[in-house]
Amino acid sequence: MSDVGAVGAMLAESLPYIQRHAGTTVVVKYGGNAIAGSDGPGAVGDFAADVAMLRAVGLRPVVVHGGGPQISEWMSRAGIEPVFSGGLRVTDAATMEIVQMVLLGIVNPLLVTAINAHGALAVGISGQDGGVLRTVPRDPALGRVGSIVGVGGAVIEALLSAGAVPVVATVGVGEDGTLYNVNADEAAAAIAVALQASKLIYLTDVAGVRRDRSDPSSIISRASRSDVLALVASGAADGGMIPKLQGCVAAVDGGVGAAHVLDGTVAHALLIELFTDGGIGTMITAAG
Amino acid sequence: MSDVGAVGAMLAESLPYIQRHAGTTVVVKYGGNAIAGSDGPGAVGDFAADVAMLRAVGLRPVVVHGGGPQISEWMSRAGIEPVFSGGLRVTDAATMEIVQMVLLGIVNPLLVTAINAHGALAVGISGQDGGVLRTVPRDPALGRVGSIVGVGGAVIEALLSAGAVPVVATVGVGEDGTLYNVNADEAAAAIAVALQASKLIYLTDVAGVRRDRSDPSSIISRASRSDVLALVASGAADGGMIPKLQGCVAAVDGGVGAAHVLDGTVAHALLIELFTDGGIGTMITAAG
Amino acid sequence: MSDVGAVGAMLAESLPYIQRHAGTTVVVKYGGNAIAGSDGPGAVGDFAADVAMLRAVGLRPVVVHGGGPQISEWMSRAGIEPVFSGGLRVTDAATMEIVQMVLLGIVNPLLVTAINAHGALAVGISGQDGGVLRTVPRDPALGRVGSIVGVGGAVIEALLSAGAVPVVATVGVGEDGTLYNVNADEAAAAIAVALQASKLIYLTDVAGVRRDRSDPSSIISRASRSDVLALVASGAADGGMIPKLQGCVAAVDGGVGAAHVLDGTVAHALLIELFTDGGIGTMITAAG
Amino acid sequence: MSDVGAVGAMLAESLPYIQRHAGTTVVVKYGGNAIAGSDGPGAVGDFAADVAMLRAVGLRPVVVHGGGPQISEWMSRAGIEPVFSGGLRVTDAATMEIVQMVLLGIVNPLLVTAINAHGALAVGISGQDGGVLRTVPRDPALGRVGSIVGVGGAVIEALLSAGAVPVVATVGVGEDGTLYNVNADEAAAAIAVALQASKLIYLTDVAGVRRDRSDPSSIISRASRSDVLALVASGAADGGMIPKLQGCVAAVDGGVGAAHVLDGTVAHALLIELFTDGGIGTMITAAG
Amino acid sequence: MSDVGAVGAMLAESLPYIQRHAGTTVVVKYGGNAIAGSDGPGAVGDFAADVAMLRAVGLRPVVVHGGGPQISEWMSRAGIEPVFSGGLRVTDAATMEIVQMVLLGIVNPLLVTAINAHGALAVGISGQDGGVLRTVPRDPALGRVGSIVGVGGAVIEALLSAGAVPVVATVGVGEDGTLYNVNADEAAAAIAVALQASKLIYLTDVAGVRRDRSDPSSIISRASRSDVLALVASGAADGGMIPKLQGCVAAVDGGVGAAHVLDGTVAHALLIELFTDGGIGTMITAAG
Amino acid sequence: MSDVGAVGAMLAESLPYIQRHAGTTVVVKYGGNAIAGSDGPGAVGDFAADVAMLRAVGLRPVVVHGGGPQISEWMSRAGIEPVFSGGLRVTDAATMEIVQMVLLGIVNPLLVTAINAHGALAVGISGQDGGVLRTVPRDPALGRVGSIVGVGGAVIEALLSAGAVPVVATVGVGEDGTLYNVNADEAAAAIAVALQASKLIYLTDVAGVRRDRSDPSSIISRASRSDVLALVASGAADGGMIPKLQGCVAAVDGGVGAAHVLDGTVAHALLIELFTDGGIGTMITAAG
Repeated sequence: MSDVGAVGAMLAESLPYIQRHAGTTVVVKYGGNAIAGSDGPGAVGDFAADVAMLRAVGLRPVVVHGGGPQISEWMSRAGIEPVFSGGLRVTDAATMEIVQMVLLGIVNPLLVTAINAHGALAVGISGQDGGVLRTVPRDPALGRVGSIVGVGGAVIEALLSAGAVPVVATVGVGEDGTLYNVNADEAAAAIAVALQASKLIYLTDVAGVRRDRSDPSSIISRASRSDVLALVASGAADGGMIPKLQGCVAAVDGGVGAAHVLDGTVAHALLIELFTDGGIGTMITAAG
Repeated sequence: MSDVGAVGAMLAESLPYIQRHAGTTVVVKYGGNAIAGSDGPGAVGDFAADVAMLRAVGLRPVVVHGGGPQISEWMSRAGIEPVFSGGLRVTDAATMEIVQMVLLGIVNPLLVTAINAHGALAVGISGQDGGVLRTVPRDPALGRVGSIVGVGGAVIEALLSAGAVPVVATVGVGEDGTLYNVNADEAAAAIAVALQASKLIYLTDVAGVRRDRSDPSSIISRASRSDVLALVASGAADGGMIPKLQGCVAAVDGGVGAAHVLDGTVAHALLIELFTDGGIGTMITAAG
Repeated sequence: MSDVGAVGAMLAESLPYIQRHAGTTVVVKYGGNAIAGSDGPGAVGDFAADVAMLRAVGLRPVVVHGGGPQISEWMSRAGIEPVFSGGLRVTDAATMEIVQMVLLGIVNPLLVTAINAHGALAVGISGQDGGVLRTVPRDPALGRVGSIVGVGGAVIEALLSAGAVPVVATVGVGEDGTLYNVNADEAAAAIAVALQASKLIYLTDVAGVRRDRSDPSSIISRASRSDVLALVASGAADGGMIPKLQGCVAAVDGGVGAAHVLDGTVAHALLIELFTDGGIGTMITAAG
Repeated sequence: MSDVGAVGAMLAESLPYIQRHAGTTVVVKYGGNAIAGSDGPGAVGDFAADVAMLRAVGLRPVVVHGGGPQISEWMSRAGIEPVFSGGLRVTDAATMEIVQMVLLGIVNPLLVTAINAHGALAVGISGQDGGVLRTVPRDPALGRVGSIVGVGGAVIEALLSAGAVPVVATVGVGEDGTLYNVNADEAAAAIAVALQASKLIYLTDVAGVRRDRSDPSSIISRASRSDVLALVASGAADGGMIPKLQGCVAAVDGGVGAAHVLDGTVAHALLIELFTDGGIGTMITAAG
Repeated sequence: MSDVGAVGAMLAESLPYIQRHAGTTVVVKYGGNAIAGSDGPGAVGDFAADVAMLRAVGLRPVVVHGGGPQISEWMSRAGIEPVFSGGLRVTDAATMEIVQMVLLGIVNPLLVTAINAHGALAVGISGQDGGVLRTVPRDPALGRVGSIVGVGGAVIEALLSAGAVPVVATVGVGEDGTLYNVNADEAAAAIAVALQASKLIYLTDVAGVRRDRSDPSSIISRASRSDVLALVASGAADGGMIPKLQGCVAAVDGGVGAAHVLDGTVAHALLIELFTDGGIGTMITAAG
Repeated sequence: MSDVGAVGAMLAESLPYIQRHAGTTVVVKYGGNAIAGSDGPGAVGDFAADVAMLRAVGLRPVVVHGGGPQISEWMSRAGIEPVFSGGLRVTDAATMEIVQMVLLGIVNPLLVTAINAHGALAVGISGQDGGVLRTVPRDPALGRVGSIVGVGGAVIEALLSAGAVPVVATVGVGEDGTLYNVNADEAAAAIAVALQASKLIYLTDVAGVRRDRSDPSSIISRASRSDVLALVASGAADGGMIPKLQGCVAAVDGGVGAAHVLDGTVAHALLIELFTDGGIGTMITAAG
C-alpha cells in the first residue's frame, strides 16, 4: 500500500500547480542536441510523455524544434562540408534542401510520432504553413538564413483549439515564397510572444545558466532580464547559450510571463519544473 | 533531486488514467461515518483535495452525502431518542426538522468549504433544489422517509458545465413540496444513473466488500452484479453494506460503467483508485 | 364576459413594463419578518408566485433572505438567550451553528419549495457556495458576525443562465473557511452591486419609508441618495429601517439602477411595483 | 389600492398559462373583415398590442393576413368589377396587380406599423420572399389564383430567432416567378404546419363555430376534426366559415396542436384565449 | 477547348478580387429608371444574376430601390398629376397610397422574384419593418416626403446573417407610424452608413459622373469628396446626379469605404466593377 | 469594354456551379508527374491558383500528393537504385528516409508555398499527424510499403473549419509509430471517403480515361463503377491508370458523390471541370 499511498500524496501535492497552469500556453523549445543525445533510455519518449501530460491536465503546449546535429550528419552523408559563421550555418541552395528535408522529413515526424504514442493528437507544421514564420534574409553572406519579421499565429491557435499539440519545425518563408533556415531559439521566442504564452521553456543538455561558464555548481536559479543581458555582455555565457538567453529576454520583453532554461536530459524535466515546488534550472522574468 | 525525479515519474505514470477519465462524470458518496471519523489528521481535508484534483484534471465529480451520526448527535442534544426500523430512521416532523438542519446547515457547508479550500468551486445543493430528488413516502410507519421516484439532473448538469463541483445533501421533495429524509446510498445510485456517470464510488470506513463478513482478509477486488446479489442473499453482507451493494447493482443496471466500494480512511483513496494500476477496494460491473 | 375582458385589458396594460424589464436582473430581499408574519392567507405563497412570474416574463430575479425571528425561536428552544449589540446578534460558536441550521436547513428550503410549487426552477445556495459572500469578522465583541468584503457572482450567473432562480441564504465565509453570520440587508445590496442589477427591492412589513417615523401617512414615494442619508442622520428612520436605507444607498452608489422599499404584506407587491403605473412604497435612485 | 391589487392578482393568475406557452409558435390569421370593421375604438390597435404582448412574454407569434374587402374597394376605384367563383376571386392580370398593391402596399404596412407602435419588432414579408409560399395555378378559370404546394419556413424562422414578429401577406409565387393570389385561411394553415406551430388561431368577426348557422347561441366550444368535417358536410357551416374549418382540419392533421376560431372583435381576444381559464370561441383538436 | 480555357483564365483572374471582398457588405441602389429601361434583353435579369453572384462568392449585398417612373405611371392611371418641387415629388395622402402600393406591391416583388430566380434567398422589406428607416417630415409644402433621422439595421443584419439578400423599398416611418415617401438615393447612403458597408454603388443609366455635363467623354474615374462637392457647387452636375453625389459624400463621410456611380445598363456592370481591374464608372473616396 | 464585358458574362455563367458546390468538400490528388512536368509556364502556379479560387468561392478543397519522380531523383543522387514490384516501390529503411525527406521536406512545402502565394492559408500535414493515415505493412517483400486501414479526419476537419487548405503528404503511420510509404492514389480515395467528400479528382498528365489505351481520341466522358471495373479487367487500362481507377471505384463505393480523372496539364483544369458546362476528362459515378 505504501507505493500507491505515495502516488496519492504526490498527485495531491501537484494540484495547486495544475490549477495555476490550466488553460495557459507553454512554448517548449526541444533542441537537436537533446534528440541526438537520446541514446539513453527514453529521452525523446520521456519528453513526449511529458508533453502529452501537459495537454491532458489542461495546458496548451506548443513544441518548437530545430535539428542542427541531424542536418550536419545528412550534409556529411551528401558530401557537403558544414560552414558556420558567427554561430550560424551558412546556407546555400543545396544546404537549404537538406535543412528542409531533415527538419520536415526526419526530425518533425519523429517528435510527432513520439507524442502521439502517448495518446495526444500531435500535428507537425512548419514556418511556411499559413505564414507561421515570415522571414527576410539575415545577411547575404549567410545565404538562405532568415530573420523572423512576423509570426502568423492563426494556424497554431486553430490546432490548439482543436485539442492538438502543434509541433513546429523552424523553416521560415519569405514574401516571395522562398524558404529560409531559421534559428530555432529565435523562433521559439517569437512564437511565444505571438501567442502571448505564459511560459517559454528551453530544454537543453546543461543544467541551467551558469554564473561562471566553467563551474557547473554556479547555476543561477532566478534572474532578471538585466542580469541576463549583463551575463551576455560579460562573456560569461558560452556560444550555445547566447541565443537562448537572447530568446529569454525577447520573450519577457514581449509579454511572456517567464522564460526557463532546463536540463532536458533529466527525466520528466518539464513535469518537475511545472508541477513541483522544487523546480530545476534557471527562470528569467522581467524583474528577476 | 531524487524526490522531484520520483514525482516526475509518478506524474508521468498517471497520464493514461487521466486521459481515460477526462470528461467523465464520477459520483462519489461520502458517508457520515467517514466525516465523523475524521478526528485523525485531515480525512475530510484529504477527501476534499482529491475531489478538487479530479476536477482540475478534467473529470466531473459530483459529491453525495448523508450525515447519520451527526443527525443522531443533534437529536440527542434535543432530547429526541433515535428510532430505527429495518435500518431506516423513523422520521417524524420534529426529526425531519433536525435532519434538514444538520444535513443542510452543518454537514453540507462543511464539505463545500473543505473542497473550496483546495481551489475548486464547490456548490452545495439539496434534493428540493430544482426537483433534484423527487420522492414519495416509503412506508407510513417510517413517517417522512422517502423513496426516490425521479431525479432532475438539469441543475447538476448546469453546475458541472459552469465548472463547479455539486455537493448534494440527500433531502428529497414530494409533489406537494413536503421534504423527506432519503437514504444517501440510494440517492447516490439514482443520481449516477440520471447523469449516466461512468463511475459510482462509495467511500466507507471498511476496506471493501468481504466474502466473509468476519474476515478482513476476504476482500473481493472485482465482482459481477450477480455475485453481489448472491452475497446479499446469503447474508454474508452486514447491515451497513447492504444498501451500498444494492446501490451498486442499481447503478450498473441503470447504465453506470462501474461501481466501487472503497476505504475512505486511506489517504487519497480516490486518486489511488482512479489514477494508479493498484486500485483498492471492490469494483462491481455488470459482468464482473 | 366582463371578467375575462378585464383580464385582457389588464394584461395589455402591463405590456410596456414587461418589455422594459425584460432580461434585467432584480435582487429581492425577503425578510424573516415577512416569513414569520405569514400566518394569514398565503403570504409566502404569493411572494413565491410573484417570483416565478418575474422569471416567466423574462426577468432574472435573485432572492436573498435572512431569518432573524426563526433563529431566535430555535435559540430559545435550545435554551440560548439571544444577545444583540447595536442591532446585530452577538454570535458565538453555538449560536452560529443554530444560524446555519435555521437559515440553510429551515428557511431556505421553505422558500425554494414555495417557488418551485409555481413551476420555476429555484435553487438554494449560500454564501460559502463558490465564494458567493466573502467575509471578515466585523468586531471581536460580536463573535462570528461578518462584514462582506467580496461577492463571487459566477455561481449566481451560471444558475440565472440555466434558467434557475437563485435563493441565497446569508451565511458568509472567511478566507480560512470559517462561516459567519451576515446581515441580509447588507448582503442583498452587495449582491445587487456585484450582478449590476437594475433593481434592488426590500420587501418589509411596513408600507415604505416614512418622513416621520410615527406617522404612517408620511410615506415618501421617491427619494435621492442624499435624501436618504439625511433621513438616517436626522434620526427619523427607526432601527430596522436603517440597514435597508444604507443598503439602498450602497446599491445606487454601486451602479444599481434603483432601490425600493415595499410592503411585502400587500398581496403581489412585486408585480404591482414592477408592472403597474401605480407602484407602491419608496423608490431610491442616485438623483432622486 | 384595490385596482392595483386586482392587477397583481390577475397577473399572478396568468402565470401558469404564460409558462405553458413559453417558446411555442402561434400562427394568427387576421382577416380583412376584422381590419375593415375597425372603425370602432381601436380594434387593430388592440390586436397589435396583443401580438406584442405574446412576443414579450416569450411566445413566437406569426401573423398571416389577407385583405378581401380592401382589394374589392380598390378594384372598384379602378373601375374593375370583382367576380367570384365558388367563393374565390377570379384574378386576371390587372386584378393581380391590385391584389399585390393592396396586400403589400396598404394592409401589410398597416399591421406592421400598428404592432411596432407597441414596442415589438414586426417585419412584413410576403409569399415570394425566400419562397415562403410556393404555388401552382388552382384552376385555369380562376386565372392567377394559386394553390399552395410548399412552404419555405427558413425566412420566418430567421425572423423569429432574431426576436421579430413576421407579418405575412398571402401572395404566392410559382416556379417561374409568377405571383398568385392565395387564400389567407389556407396559407395560415400551411404555414402553421410548416412551422409545427402549437396553435393556429383564426380571428374572425363571429363568436365561434355555430352548430346551427342561424343561431348565435349555438357556439361549439370544443370539437374534434371529425365533428368539423361533419359540420361542413351537413351544410351547417356558412360560406366564409368553410375555408377556416378546412384550415383547422389541415392544421391538426399536419401536427399543429390545436386550431381556434375566435371573435376578433372582442377586445384582447388573443390574451383572453391564451391566458385565462375562460377561453372564448371554438377549439378544434385531432380528438376533440 | 479554347472557350472553356478562356473561362478558366478569367475565373482565375477574378480570384484576388473575390478574396478582397469576401464578407464585406455592399449596398446597391437600383433605380426606377434602370427597371423602366429594361425592355432590352434582360437588364433586370442580369442585375438579379449579378446580385446572386455576389452573395454566392461571399459578399453580403443589400439592394435598395425606388420606383419613380412606375409611381408616375400609376398616378397617371389614377388620374393624378405628378407635381415636383425642387426635384422631389409633392406627396399628398392619395399620392402616398400610390407610392406604397407601387413600391411595395409592384417594384419590390419584381426584384425579389428576379433575384430568387437565380438561386438566392431574396427577402423584400421596407422602411417601416422593424424601424429600418425612421423619418420626419421634410417640408410641410412637400406633404408626406420624409427626411431620414435614423436607420435600424438589426432586421437587415439578421437577414444577412441568415444568408438572405435584403431588398429594401424606400418607404419611411414616423414616430407615430405615419408612412413617408423617402428619396432612394438618400436612403441607400443612410443604410450603407448604418451597416458600415465597404461600398455603396449607385446603378444609373449614365456611364458615370461627367466633368462636363454635356460631354459624355468627360467621365471622371476617380474623385475625392471635395472634388464632388466642387462639382455640385459649380453646377456641372445635372439634376438627377445631384442626390447621388450627395449620397456618395454622406457615405464616405460616414465611414463607408468607397461610393460608386455606375452605368447599370452595361451588362453585368456590378461584376465588372467588383471583379476586374478595368472597373467602370466613377469611384468616390474620402481622399480621392 | 468588350474584354470586361466578356468577363462579366463568364462570371455570371459560373454562378449556378458556384452555388451548387458551395460548402462541399473536394479532394484533389495532384501527382508527382504533374509537378515534375511543370517546366512549362506555370503549371504548379496555375494549380495553386485554382485551389485558392475553390476556397475563395466557398468550397473546401483538400490536396493530396505523392512525389514518385522526385523520390526517384533523390534516390539516384544518394546512389540508391529504385526497385519496383507490381508497380509499387520496394521501400527499405534507407529508402523510407528519402521518401519522408522528399515528400515532407521538398514536395509538400513547394505546394503549400504555391497555394499561399494566391492568398489562401495552406497548411501541410502528413499521415502521421494526428493519425491521419493509419497503416499496416502491405507485403513483407515490399518493406515499408503500407496499406491504409483507417483515416483520422479530425485534424483535416479542424483545418477546414479554420478556413485553411490542408495539403496532405502520403506518409502513413503504423500502430507502433513506424512510418510507411503509402500510394497517393489510394490515400486520396480513403481520405475522400473519410470526409464524405462530394468529389474526388485525380489530376494526371493524360486527358482522361481511354476506352482504347493506344487511342487518345477514345476518351470516355462518363462511366459507371462497373464500366470502370470492366475496363481494368479487360486490360484496357495501363499501369499508371489502374490505381486511379481503383481509387475512383473505392470512392464512389464509399459514398463520395463522383470521381474524376482530369488532364492536369490543361491550364485551370479544376475550374473548367467544376464551373463550366463543358467539363473535361472522365467522370465516374456509382451508376454511370
